[in-house]
Amino acid sequence: MAAFINNEFVDDSKAMLHVSDLSMQRGFALFDFFRTVNGKPLYWDDHLDRFFASAAAMRLPVSKSKEELKKIALELISRSGLKEAGIRFMLTGGYSFNGYSPAAPNLVVTCNPVKVATAADFEKGMRIMTYEHQRELAHIKTINYQMAVWLQPVLLEKHADDVLYYRNNIITEFPRSNVFIVTREGKLVTPEHNILHGITRKNLIALASKQMEVEVRDITLHELKNATEVFLASTTKKIIPVLKIDDSIIANGNPGSVTKELYERLLDFEKAYLNKPTGMPAL
Amino acid sequence: MAAFINNEFVDDSKAMLHVSDLSMQRGFALFDFFRTVNGKPLYWDDHLDRFFASAAAMRLPVSKSKEELKKIALELISRSGLKEAGIRFMLTGGYSFNGYSPAAPNLVVTCNPVKVATAADFEKGMRIMTYEHQRELAHIKTINYQMAVWLQPVLLEKHADDVLYYRNNIITEFPRSNVFIVTREGKLVTPEHNILHGITRKNLIALASKQMEVEVRDITLHELKNATEVFLASTTKKIIPVLKIDDSIIANGNPGSVTKELYERLLDFEKAYLNKPTGMPAL
Repeated sequence: MAAFINNEFVDDSKAMLHVSDLSMQRGFALFDFFRTVNGKPLYWDDHLDRFFASAAAMRLPVSKSKEELKKIALELISRSGLKEAGIRFMLTGGYSFNGYSPAAPNLVVTCNPVKVATAADFEKGMRIMTYEHQRELAHIKTINYQMAVWLQPVLLEKHADDVLYYRNNIITEFPRSNVFIVTREGKLVTPEHNILHGITRKNLIALASKQMEVEVRDITLHELKNATEVFLASTTKKIIPVLKIDDSIIANGNPGSVTKELYERLLDFEKAYLNKPTGMPAL
Repeated sequence: MAAFINNEFVDDSKAMLHVSDLSMQRGFALFDFFRTVNGKPLYWDDHLDRFFASAAAMRLPVSKSKEELKKIALELISRSGLKEAGIRFMLTGGYSFNGYSPAAPNLVVTCNPVKVATAADFEKGMRIMTYEHQRELAHIKTINYQMAVWLQPVLLEKHADDVLYYRNNIITEFPRSNVFIVTREGKLVTPEHNILHGITRKNLIALASKQMEVEVRDITLHELKNATEVFLASTTKKIIPVLKIDDSIIANGNPGSVTKELYERLLDFEKAYLNKPTGMPAL
Protein backbone atom coordinates (compact mmCIF):
# COMPACT_ATOMS: atom_id res chain seq x y z
CA MET A 1 0.00 0.00 0.00
CA ALA A 2 1.28 3.46 -0.81
CA ALA A 3 0.65 6.84 0.83
CA PHE A 4 1.38 10.43 -0.11
CA ILE A 5 3.07 12.94 2.22
CA ASN A 6 3.44 16.60 1.18
CA ASN A 7 5.19 16.13 -2.14
CA GLU A 8 5.91 12.46 -2.57
CA PHE A 9 4.48 9.02 -2.73
CA VAL A 10 5.93 6.80 0.00
CA ASP A 11 5.55 3.22 1.05
CA ASP A 12 2.80 2.90 3.65
CA SER A 13 5.40 1.99 6.30
CA LYS A 14 6.88 5.48 5.76
CA ALA A 15 3.56 7.28 6.26
CA MET A 16 4.83 8.83 9.48
CA LEU A 17 4.92 12.29 11.01
CA HIS A 18 7.34 13.67 13.57
CA VAL A 19 5.79 14.06 17.03
CA SER A 20 6.34 17.83 16.86
CA ASP A 21 3.42 17.95 14.41
CA LEU A 22 0.55 19.96 15.86
CA SER A 23 -1.80 16.98 15.39
CA MET A 24 0.13 15.15 18.12
CA GLN A 25 1.09 18.20 20.15
CA ARG A 26 -2.36 19.82 20.26
CA GLY A 27 -4.82 17.67 18.33
CA PHE A 28 -4.87 20.29 15.58
CA ALA A 29 -5.66 18.75 12.19
CA LEU A 30 -8.55 18.15 9.81
CA PHE A 31 -9.38 15.50 7.24
CA ASP A 32 -11.88 14.20 4.77
CA PHE A 33 -12.62 10.77 3.43
CA PHE A 34 -14.27 9.20 0.41
CA ARG A 35 -14.58 5.64 -0.84
CA THR A 36 -14.37 3.91 -4.18
CA VAL A 37 -16.80 1.43 -5.68
CA ASN A 38 -15.19 -0.95 -8.12
CA GLY A 39 -12.23 1.44 -8.27
CA LYS A 40 -14.31 4.55 -8.97
CA PRO A 41 -14.29 7.46 -6.49
CA LEU A 42 -17.71 8.20 -5.01
CA TYR A 43 -18.80 11.84 -4.56
CA TRP A 44 -15.17 12.95 -4.42
CA ASP A 45 -15.97 16.49 -5.57
CA ASP A 46 -18.19 16.97 -2.52
CA HIS A 47 -15.60 15.49 -0.17
CA LEU A 48 -12.74 17.51 -1.58
CA ASP A 49 -14.81 20.70 -1.51
CA ARG A 50 -15.52 20.03 2.17
CA PHE A 51 -11.80 19.32 2.74
CA PHE A 52 -10.92 22.76 1.37
CA ALA A 53 -13.73 24.36 3.40
CA SER A 54 -12.43 22.68 6.60
CA ALA A 55 -8.89 23.86 5.81
CA ALA A 56 -10.08 27.43 5.30
CA ALA A 57 -12.08 27.31 8.55
CA MET A 58 -8.96 26.06 10.39
CA ARG A 59 -6.94 28.76 8.59
CA LEU A 60 -4.53 26.17 7.15
CA PRO A 61 -3.40 26.59 3.52
CA VAL A 62 -3.62 23.57 1.17
CA SER A 63 -0.51 23.29 -1.00
CA LYS A 64 -2.30 21.37 -3.79
CA SER A 65 -5.25 22.19 -6.01
CA LYS A 66 -8.36 20.02 -6.11
CA GLU A 67 -7.27 18.57 -9.46
CA GLU A 68 -3.84 17.72 -8.01
CA LEU A 69 -5.48 16.01 -5.03
CA LYS A 70 -7.64 13.99 -7.41
CA LYS A 71 -4.58 12.84 -9.33
CA ILE A 72 -2.87 11.83 -6.08
CA ALA A 73 -5.97 9.86 -5.06
CA LEU A 74 -6.17 8.08 -8.42
CA GLU A 75 -2.50 7.16 -8.27
CA LEU A 76 -2.93 5.72 -4.76
CA ILE A 77 -6.04 3.80 -5.79
CA SER A 78 -4.19 2.43 -8.80
CA ARG A 79 -1.11 1.43 -6.78
CA SER A 80 -3.26 -0.20 -4.08
CA GLY A 81 -5.07 -2.44 -6.53
CA LEU A 82 -8.13 -2.07 -4.27
CA LYS A 83 -11.60 -2.00 -5.78
CA GLU A 84 -13.27 -0.87 -2.54
CA ALA A 85 -10.90 1.64 -0.95
CA GLY A 86 -11.14 4.46 1.58
CA ILE A 87 -9.08 7.50 0.66
CA ARG A 88 -8.27 9.81 3.55
CA PHE A 89 -6.89 13.33 3.13
CA MET A 90 -5.42 14.83 6.31
CA LEU A 91 -4.04 18.33 6.78
CA THR A 92 -2.27 19.04 10.07
CA GLY A 93 -1.02 22.13 11.92
CA GLY A 94 2.51 21.21 10.83
CA TYR A 95 5.84 20.92 12.63
CA SER A 96 5.43 23.62 15.25
CA PHE A 97 8.57 25.29 16.61
CA ASN A 98 6.94 25.80 20.00
CA GLY A 99 4.42 22.94 20.06
CA TYR A 100 1.52 25.42 20.06
CA SER A 101 1.51 27.68 17.00
CA PRO A 102 0.62 26.38 13.53
CA ALA A 103 3.42 25.99 10.96
CA ALA A 104 3.43 24.87 7.31
CA PRO A 105 0.75 22.14 7.25
CA ASN A 106 1.58 18.51 6.57
CA LEU A 107 -0.63 16.90 3.93
CA VAL A 108 -1.06 13.13 4.23
CA VAL A 109 -3.14 11.03 1.83
CA THR A 110 -3.69 7.33 2.52
CA CYS A 111 -5.60 4.60 0.72
CA ASN A 112 -6.80 1.56 2.62
CA PRO A 113 -9.40 -1.20 2.44
CA VAL A 114 -12.76 0.08 3.64
CA LYS A 115 -15.64 -1.68 5.35
CA VAL A 116 -18.98 -0.64 3.88
CA ALA A 117 -22.36 -1.50 5.38
CA THR A 118 -24.23 -4.31 3.61
CA ALA A 119 -27.92 -5.12 3.07
CA ALA A 120 -27.63 -7.43 6.08
CA ASP A 121 -26.39 -4.51 8.20
CA PHE A 122 -29.43 -2.54 7.04
CA GLU A 123 -31.80 -5.33 8.06
CA LYS A 124 -30.13 -5.78 11.43
CA GLY A 125 -30.33 -2.08 12.26
CA MET A 126 -28.75 -0.45 15.30
CA ARG A 127 -29.31 0.09 18.98
CA ILE A 128 -28.09 3.47 20.12
CA MET A 129 -27.59 5.46 23.31
CA THR A 130 -27.93 9.22 23.70
CA TYR A 131 -25.27 11.33 25.43
CA GLU A 132 -25.07 15.02 26.27
CA HIS A 133 -22.15 16.46 24.36
CA GLN A 134 -21.50 19.11 21.73
CA ARG A 135 -18.55 18.63 19.38
CA GLU A 136 -16.20 21.63 19.29
CA LEU A 137 -16.14 23.45 15.93
CA ALA A 138 -18.73 20.94 14.74
CA HIS A 139 -18.99 22.42 11.22
CA ILE A 140 -15.32 21.54 10.56
CA LYS A 141 -14.20 17.94 9.96
CA THR A 142 -11.36 18.03 12.51
CA ILE A 143 -9.62 14.92 13.87
CA ASN A 144 -11.20 15.49 17.30
CA TYR A 145 -13.20 12.33 18.09
CA GLN A 146 -11.87 12.20 21.64
CA MET A 147 -15.30 11.86 23.24
CA ALA A 148 -16.41 9.22 20.73
CA VAL A 149 -13.35 7.05 21.42
CA TRP A 150 -13.60 7.67 25.15
CA LEU A 151 -17.25 6.49 25.13
CA GLN A 152 -16.53 3.17 23.40
CA PRO A 153 -16.38 1.16 26.65
CA VAL A 154 -19.63 2.83 27.75
CA LEU A 155 -21.32 1.69 24.53
CA LEU A 156 -20.22 -1.87 25.26
CA GLU A 157 -21.62 -1.69 28.80
CA LYS A 158 -24.94 -0.34 27.54
CA HIS A 159 -25.15 -2.79 24.61
CA ALA A 160 -25.33 0.15 22.21
CA ASP A 161 -23.86 0.19 18.70
CA ASP A 162 -23.40 3.95 18.52
CA VAL A 163 -23.99 7.18 20.41
CA LEU A 164 -26.22 10.09 19.41
CA TYR A 165 -25.15 13.43 20.90
CA TYR A 166 -27.59 16.00 22.21
CA ARG A 167 -27.25 19.32 23.98
CA ASN A 168 -29.91 21.18 25.96
CA ASN A 169 -32.41 18.51 24.91
CA ILE A 170 -31.76 19.04 21.16
CA ILE A 171 -30.20 16.13 19.23
CA THR A 172 -27.34 16.88 16.84
CA GLU A 173 -25.44 13.96 15.28
CA PHE A 174 -23.58 10.69 15.74
CA PRO A 175 -19.76 10.91 15.94
CA ARG A 176 -19.46 9.76 12.30
CA SER A 177 -22.95 10.05 10.82
CA ASN A 178 -26.06 12.21 10.63
CA VAL A 179 -29.47 11.41 12.11
CA PHE A 180 -32.88 11.51 10.40
CA ILE A 181 -36.35 10.91 11.81
CA VAL A 182 -39.73 10.26 10.23
CA THR A 183 -42.43 12.04 12.24
CA ARG A 184 -45.93 10.78 12.98
CA GLU A 185 -47.11 13.24 10.30
CA GLY A 186 -44.87 11.45 7.77
CA LYS A 187 -42.28 14.21 7.42
CA LEU A 188 -38.56 13.55 7.15
CA VAL A 189 -36.63 15.73 9.60
CA THR A 190 -32.89 16.15 10.20
CA PRO A 191 -30.99 18.63 12.42
CA GLU A 192 -29.59 21.83 10.97
CA HIS A 193 -27.32 23.33 13.63
CA ASN A 194 -24.12 22.32 15.45
CA ILE A 195 -23.40 19.37 13.17
CA LEU A 196 -21.03 18.32 10.43
CA HIS A 197 -22.90 18.56 7.15
CA GLY A 198 -22.56 15.06 5.71
CA ILE A 199 -22.41 14.32 1.99
CA THR A 200 -24.87 11.43 2.31
CA ARG A 201 -27.11 13.76 4.37
CA LYS A 202 -27.07 16.29 1.53
CA ASN A 203 -27.89 13.64 -1.09
CA LEU A 204 -30.68 12.20 1.05
CA ILE A 205 -32.31 15.59 1.62
CA ALA A 206 -32.32 16.15 -2.16
CA LEU A 207 -33.65 12.65 -2.93
CA ALA A 208 -36.35 12.67 -0.24
CA SER A 209 -37.56 16.16 -1.18
CA LYS A 210 -38.83 14.73 -4.48
CA GLN A 211 -41.33 12.47 -2.74
CA MET A 212 -42.11 13.84 0.73
CA GLU A 213 -41.97 16.85 2.98
CA VAL A 214 -38.50 17.40 4.40
CA GLU A 215 -37.69 19.71 7.30
CA VAL A 216 -34.19 20.75 8.35
CA ARG A 217 -34.56 22.00 11.94
CA ASP A 218 -33.97 21.29 15.62
CA ILE A 219 -35.29 17.96 16.96
CA THR A 220 -35.88 17.38 20.68
CA LEU A 221 -35.07 14.13 22.49
CA HIS A 222 -38.80 13.70 23.06
CA GLU A 223 -39.58 14.02 19.34
CA LEU A 224 -36.77 11.58 18.56
CA LYS A 225 -38.09 8.88 20.86
CA ASN A 226 -41.61 9.36 19.58
CA ALA A 227 -40.64 9.24 15.91
CA THR A 228 -42.18 6.63 13.61
CA GLU A 229 -38.79 5.84 12.11
CA VAL A 230 -35.21 6.85 12.89
CA PHE A 231 -32.06 6.20 10.86
CA LEU A 232 -28.48 7.34 10.45
CA ALA A 233 -26.62 8.11 7.23
CA SER A 234 -22.95 8.24 6.32
CA THR A 235 -20.44 7.55 3.56
CA THR A 236 -19.61 4.02 4.75
CA LYS A 237 -22.87 3.13 6.53
CA LYS A 238 -25.15 4.49 3.77
CA ILE A 239 -28.45 4.22 5.71
CA ILE A 240 -28.86 2.14 8.88
CA PRO A 241 -32.22 2.02 10.69
CA VAL A 242 -32.14 2.84 14.41
CA LEU A 243 -34.35 0.31 16.17
CA LYS A 244 -33.65 1.05 19.82
CA ILE A 245 -32.78 4.35 21.55
CA ASP A 246 -31.71 4.04 25.19
CA ASP A 247 -34.65 1.98 26.53
CA SER A 248 -37.14 2.90 23.82
CA ILE A 249 -37.98 0.57 20.94
CA ILE A 250 -38.52 2.43 17.64
CA ALA A 251 -40.97 1.33 14.93
CA ASN A 252 -41.63 -2.02 16.70
CA GLY A 253 -37.95 -2.82 16.29
CA ASN A 254 -38.00 -3.26 12.51
CA PRO A 255 -36.75 -1.09 9.62
CA GLY A 256 -39.62 1.20 8.59
CA SER A 257 -41.13 1.60 5.12
CA VAL A 258 -39.91 5.18 4.56
CA THR A 259 -36.37 4.20 5.62
CA LYS A 260 -36.45 1.23 3.22
CA GLU A 261 -37.71 3.38 0.36
CA LEU A 262 -34.99 6.02 0.93
CA TYR A 263 -32.34 3.29 1.19
CA GLU A 264 -33.33 1.95 -2.24
CA ARG A 265 -33.29 5.43 -3.72
CA LEU A 266 -29.86 6.13 -2.21
CA LEU A 267 -28.46 2.90 -3.71
CA ASP A 268 -29.97 3.84 -7.10
CA PHE A 269 -28.49 7.33 -6.84
CA GLU A 270 -25.05 5.83 -6.11
CA LYS A 271 -25.36 3.52 -9.14
CA ALA A 272 -26.38 6.40 -11.38
CA TYR A 273 -23.43 8.47 -10.17
CA LEU A 274 -21.02 5.62 -10.86
CA ASN A 275 -22.43 5.02 -14.35
CA LYS A 276 -21.86 8.62 -15.38
CA PRO A 277 -18.65 9.50 -17.23
CA THR A 278 -16.21 10.15 -14.39
CA GLY A 279 -14.50 13.28 -15.54
CA MET A 280 -11.41 11.79 -13.91
CA PRO A 281 -8.21 13.68 -14.67
CA ALA A 282 -5.75 11.70 -16.77
CA LEU A 283 -2.85 10.31 -14.76
CA MET B 1 18.57 15.60 20.94
CA ALA B 2 17.24 12.18 21.77
CA ALA B 3 13.73 10.87 22.27
CA PHE B 4 12.24 7.65 23.59
CA ILE B 5 9.56 5.65 21.77
CA ASN B 6 7.98 2.60 23.43
CA ASN B 7 11.12 0.62 24.24
CA GLU B 8 14.05 2.47 22.78
CA PHE B 9 15.97 5.68 22.69
CA VAL B 10 16.02 7.15 19.20
CA ASP B 11 17.53 10.18 17.57
CA ASP B 12 15.07 13.08 17.64
CA SER B 13 14.70 12.89 13.87
CA LYS B 14 13.26 9.38 14.38
CA ALA B 15 10.67 10.51 16.92
CA MET B 16 7.86 9.72 14.50
CA LEU B 17 4.57 7.85 14.62
CA HIS B 18 2.71 6.21 11.77
CA VAL B 19 -0.41 8.13 10.71
CA SER B 20 -2.60 5.17 11.73
CA ASP B 21 -1.94 6.18 15.35
CA LEU B 22 -5.18 7.19 17.06
CA SER B 23 -3.65 10.59 17.96
CA MET B 24 -3.69 11.48 14.25
CA GLN B 25 -6.78 9.47 13.31
CA ARG B 26 -9.02 10.70 16.14
CA GLY B 27 -7.08 13.12 18.34
CA PHE B 28 -6.94 10.44 21.05
CA ALA B 29 -3.85 10.84 23.26
CA LEU B 30 -2.77 12.34 26.57
CA PHE B 31 0.45 13.78 27.89
CA ASP B 32 2.19 15.48 30.77
CA PHE B 33 5.12 17.81 30.98
CA PHE B 34 7.67 18.92 33.53
CA ARG B 35 10.77 21.10 33.34
CA THR B 36 14.26 20.96 34.78
CA VAL B 37 16.13 23.72 36.58
CA ASN B 38 19.88 23.43 36.25
CA GLY B 39 19.35 19.84 35.13
CA LYS B 40 17.13 18.87 38.06
CA PRO B 41 13.52 17.75 37.42
CA LEU B 42 10.93 20.00 39.05
CA TYR B 43 7.88 18.40 40.73
CA TRP B 44 8.21 15.33 38.53
CA ASP B 45 6.41 13.08 41.02
CA ASP B 46 3.31 15.25 40.73
CA HIS B 47 3.52 15.36 36.93
CA LEU B 48 4.07 11.62 36.59
CA ASP B 49 1.26 10.87 39.04
CA ARG B 50 -1.04 13.03 36.90
CA PHE B 51 0.22 11.27 33.75
CA PHE B 52 -0.82 7.91 35.20
CA ALA B 53 -4.14 9.37 36.34
CA SER B 54 -4.81 10.73 32.83
CA ALA B 55 -3.92 7.35 31.31
CA ALA B 56 -6.30 5.57 33.68
CA ALA B 57 -9.07 8.06 32.89
CA MET B 58 -8.49 7.48 29.16
CA ARG B 59 -8.39 3.73 29.85
CA LEU B 60 -4.94 3.38 28.27
CA PRO B 61 -2.38 1.13 29.98
CA VAL B 62 1.13 2.51 30.62
CA SER B 63 3.79 -0.08 29.82
CA LYS B 64 6.38 1.45 32.18
CA SER B 65 6.41 2.07 35.92
CA LYS B 66 6.89 5.54 37.38
CA GLU B 67 10.49 4.66 38.31
CA GLU B 68 11.16 3.47 34.76
CA LEU B 69 9.74 6.72 33.34
CA LYS B 70 11.99 8.69 35.68
CA LYS B 71 15.04 6.79 34.45
CA ILE B 72 14.04 7.45 30.84
CA ALA B 73 13.65 11.16 31.63
CA LEU B 74 17.04 11.35 33.34
CA GLU B 75 18.73 9.61 30.44
CA LEU B 76 17.13 12.06 27.96
CA ILE B 77 18.11 15.05 30.11
CA SER B 78 21.66 13.73 30.33
CA ARG B 79 21.91 13.08 26.57
CA SER B 80 20.45 16.50 25.75
CA GLY B 81 23.04 18.37 27.82
CA LEU B 82 20.25 20.88 28.56
CA LYS B 83 20.12 22.60 31.94
CA GLU B 84 16.63 24.03 31.35
CA ALA B 85 14.66 21.33 29.55
CA GLY B 86 11.01 20.46 29.03
CA ILE B 87 10.27 16.74 29.24
CA ARG B 88 7.05 15.65 27.60
CA PHE B 89 5.47 12.22 28.13
CA MET B 90 2.80 11.33 25.57
CA LEU B 91 0.61 8.23 25.52
CA THR B 92 -1.52 7.70 22.42
CA GLY B 93 -4.41 5.44 21.42
CA GLY B 94 -1.94 3.37 19.38
CA TYR B 95 -1.90 1.98 15.86
CA SER B 96 -5.58 1.35 15.38
CA PHE B 97 -6.62 -1.39 12.92
CA ASN B 98 -9.79 0.50 12.00
CA GLY B 99 -8.76 4.09 12.71
CA TYR B 100 -11.31 4.32 15.53
CA SER B 101 -10.71 1.76 18.28
CA PRO B 102 -7.76 2.04 20.70
CA ALA B 103 -4.88 -0.40 20.31
CA ALA B 104 -1.64 -0.91 22.29
CA PRO B 105 -0.67 2.67 23.23
CA ASN B 106 2.45 4.35 21.88
CA LEU B 107 4.61 5.98 24.55
CA VAL B 108 6.72 8.91 23.36
CA VAL B 109 9.08 10.86 25.62
CA THR B 110 10.86 13.95 24.31
CA CYS B 111 13.28 16.43 25.86
CA ASN B 112 13.59 19.92 24.40
CA PRO B 113 14.71 23.42 25.36
CA VAL B 114 11.97 25.17 27.33
CA LYS B 115 11.03 28.83 27.57
CA VAL B 116 10.28 29.82 31.17
CA ALA B 117 8.75 33.12 32.22
CA THR B 118 11.21 35.63 33.70
CA ALA B 119 10.93 38.41 36.30
CA ALA B 120 10.48 40.81 33.36
CA ASP B 121 7.51 38.74 32.14
CA PHE B 122 6.04 39.02 35.64
CA GLU B 123 6.41 42.80 35.66
CA LYS B 124 4.96 43.15 32.18
CA GLY B 125 1.88 41.08 33.03
CA MET B 126 -0.76 39.96 30.53
CA ARG B 127 -3.80 41.24 28.70
CA ILE B 128 -6.42 38.54 28.28
CA MET B 129 -9.72 37.98 26.55
CA THR B 130 -12.58 35.80 27.79
CA TYR B 131 -14.28 33.23 25.56
CA GLU B 132 -17.23 30.90 26.15
CA HIS B 133 -15.94 27.37 25.86
CA GLN B 134 -15.69 24.26 28.01
CA ARG B 135 -12.83 21.84 27.36
CA GLU B 136 -13.98 18.24 26.85
CA LEU B 137 -12.86 15.83 29.59
CA ALA B 138 -11.23 18.82 31.28
CA HIS B 139 -9.88 16.80 34.23
CA ILE B 140 -7.68 14.75 31.86
CA LYS B 141 -4.56 16.23 30.26
CA THR B 142 -5.43 15.19 26.71
CA ILE B 143 -3.77 16.60 23.58
CA ASN B 144 -6.98 18.42 22.63
CA TYR B 145 -6.10 22.14 22.42
CA GLN B 146 -8.01 22.55 19.17
CA MET B 147 -9.98 25.58 20.37
CA ALA B 148 -6.88 27.24 21.84
CA VAL B 149 -4.95 26.92 18.57
CA TRP B 150 -7.97 27.94 16.55
CA LEU B 151 -8.35 31.11 18.65
CA GLN B 152 -4.76 32.28 18.15
CA PRO B 153 -5.60 34.66 15.25
CA VAL B 154 -8.50 36.04 17.33
CA LEU B 155 -6.08 36.82 20.18
CA LEU B 156 -3.90 38.75 17.75
CA GLU B 157 -6.87 40.75 16.49
CA LYS B 158 -7.96 41.61 20.03
CA HIS B 159 -4.41 42.38 21.23
CA ALA B 160 -4.76 39.70 23.91
CA ASP B 161 -1.92 37.50 25.19
CA ASP B 162 -4.12 34.61 26.27
CA VAL B 163 -7.73 33.46 26.54
CA LEU B 164 -9.69 32.63 29.70
CA TYR B 165 -12.55 30.19 29.11
CA TYR B 166 -15.91 30.52 30.82
CA ARG B 167 -19.20 28.66 30.57
CA ASN B 168 -22.61 29.83 31.74
CA ASN B 169 -20.97 32.92 33.21
CA ILE B 170 -18.52 30.86 35.37
CA ILE B 171 -14.80 31.12 34.56
CA THR B 172 -12.74 27.93 34.42
CA GLU B 173 -9.16 28.11 33.15
CA PHE B 174 -6.72 29.24 30.47
CA PRO B 175 -5.78 26.66 27.82
CA ARG B 176 -2.45 25.99 29.57
CA SER B 177 -2.74 27.58 33.01
CA ASN B 178 -5.03 28.12 36.00
CA VAL B 179 -6.61 31.37 37.09
CA PHE B 180 -6.60 32.96 40.57
CA ILE B 181 -8.27 36.13 41.81
CA VAL B 182 -7.86 38.26 44.94
CA THR B 183 -11.26 39.51 46.06
CA ARG B 184 -12.05 42.93 47.56
CA GLU B 185 -12.22 41.12 50.92
CA GLY B 186 -8.61 39.99 50.43
CA LYS B 187 -9.38 36.31 49.82
CA LEU B 188 -7.55 34.23 47.24
CA VAL B 189 -10.03 32.32 45.07
CA THR B 190 -9.52 29.78 42.27
CA PRO B 191 -12.05 27.63 40.37
CA GLU B 192 -12.73 24.07 41.44
CA HIS B 193 -14.81 22.48 38.67
CA ASN B 194 -14.36 21.69 34.97
CA ILE B 195 -10.62 22.41 34.94
CA LEU B 196 -7.30 20.61 34.76
CA HIS B 197 -5.83 20.57 38.24
CA GLY B 198 -2.44 22.21 37.75
CA ILE B 199 0.62 21.33 39.80
CA THR B 200 1.53 25.01 40.31
CA ARG B 201 -2.11 25.62 41.30
CA LYS B 202 -1.83 22.90 43.96
CA ASN B 203 1.43 24.34 45.31
CA LEU B 204 0.02 27.88 45.36
CA ILE B 205 -3.11 26.86 47.25
CA ALA B 206 -0.91 25.19 49.88
CA LEU B 207 1.48 28.16 50.10
CA ALA B 208 -1.22 30.83 50.22
CA SER B 209 -3.26 28.97 52.84
CA LYS B 210 -0.48 29.64 55.37
CA GLN B 211 -1.00 33.38 55.18
CA MET B 212 -4.50 34.18 53.90
CA GLU B 213 -7.97 32.84 53.39
CA VAL B 214 -8.20 30.65 50.29
CA GLU B 215 -11.43 29.56 48.63
CA VAL B 216 -11.70 26.93 45.90
CA ARG B 217 -15.07 27.54 44.27
CA ASP B 218 -16.93 28.91 41.24
CA ILE B 219 -16.09 32.47 40.13
CA THR B 220 -18.43 34.51 37.93
CA LEU B 221 -17.26 36.78 35.12
CA HIS B 222 -18.57 39.72 37.15
CA GLU B 223 -16.49 38.74 40.20
CA LEU B 224 -13.45 38.27 37.97
CA LYS B 225 -13.66 41.73 36.45
CA ASN B 226 -14.22 43.30 39.86
CA ALA B 227 -11.35 41.49 41.53
CA THR B 228 -8.56 43.47 43.18
CA GLU B 229 -5.91 41.27 41.57
CA VAL B 230 -5.98 38.47 38.96
CA PHE B 231 -3.16 36.17 37.91
CA LEU B 232 -2.48 32.91 36.12
CA ALA B 233 -0.21 30.07 37.18
CA SER B 234 1.51 27.25 35.32
CA THR B 235 4.67 25.14 35.16
CA THR B 236 6.44 27.37 32.63
CA LYS B 237 4.74 30.71 33.42
CA LYS B 238 5.00 30.35 37.22
CA ILE B 239 2.80 33.37 38.10
CA ILE B 240 1.89 36.12 35.63
CA PRO B 241 -0.33 39.04 36.72
CA VAL B 242 -3.39 39.68 34.53
CA LEU B 243 -3.64 43.45 34.04
CA LYS B 244 -6.40 43.74 31.45
CA ILE B 245 -9.46 41.53 30.84
CA ASP B 246 -11.39 42.29 27.65
CA ASP B 247 -11.90 46.05 28.09
CA SER B 248 -11.46 46.14 31.87
CA ILE B 249 -8.22 47.29 33.51
CA ILE B 250 -7.38 45.26 36.65
CA ALA B 251 -5.57 46.71 39.70
CA ASN B 252 -4.80 49.99 37.90
CA GLY B 253 -2.80 47.97 35.37
CA ASN B 254 0.05 47.00 37.70
CA PRO B 255 0.99 43.73 39.45
CA GLY B 256 -0.73 43.74 42.86
CA SER B 257 0.89 43.25 46.26
CA VAL B 258 -0.70 39.84 46.99
CA THR B 259 0.36 38.55 43.57
CA LYS B 260 3.93 39.78 44.18
CA GLU B 261 4.06 38.18 47.61
CA LEU B 262 2.80 34.81 46.28
CA TYR B 263 5.26 34.99 43.37
CA GLU B 264 8.16 35.37 45.82
CA ARG B 265 6.88 32.49 47.93
CA LEU B 266 6.50 30.30 44.84
CA LEU B 267 10.09 31.03 43.77
CA ASP B 268 11.31 30.24 47.32
CA PHE B 269 9.30 27.01 47.31
CA GLU B 270 10.89 26.02 44.00
CA LYS B 271 14.38 26.73 45.36
CA ALA B 272 13.70 24.71 48.50
CA TYR B 273 12.45 21.79 46.38
CA LEU B 274 15.57 21.89 44.23
CA ASN B 275 17.88 22.02 47.25
CA LYS B 276 16.39 18.89 48.74
CA PRO B 277 18.07 15.54 48.04
CA THR B 278 16.48 14.48 44.77
CA GLY B 279 15.74 10.86 45.39
CA MET B 280 16.63 10.41 41.71
CA PRO B 281 16.91 6.77 40.66
CA ALA B 282 20.42 5.74 39.64
CA LEU B 283 20.88 5.52 35.89
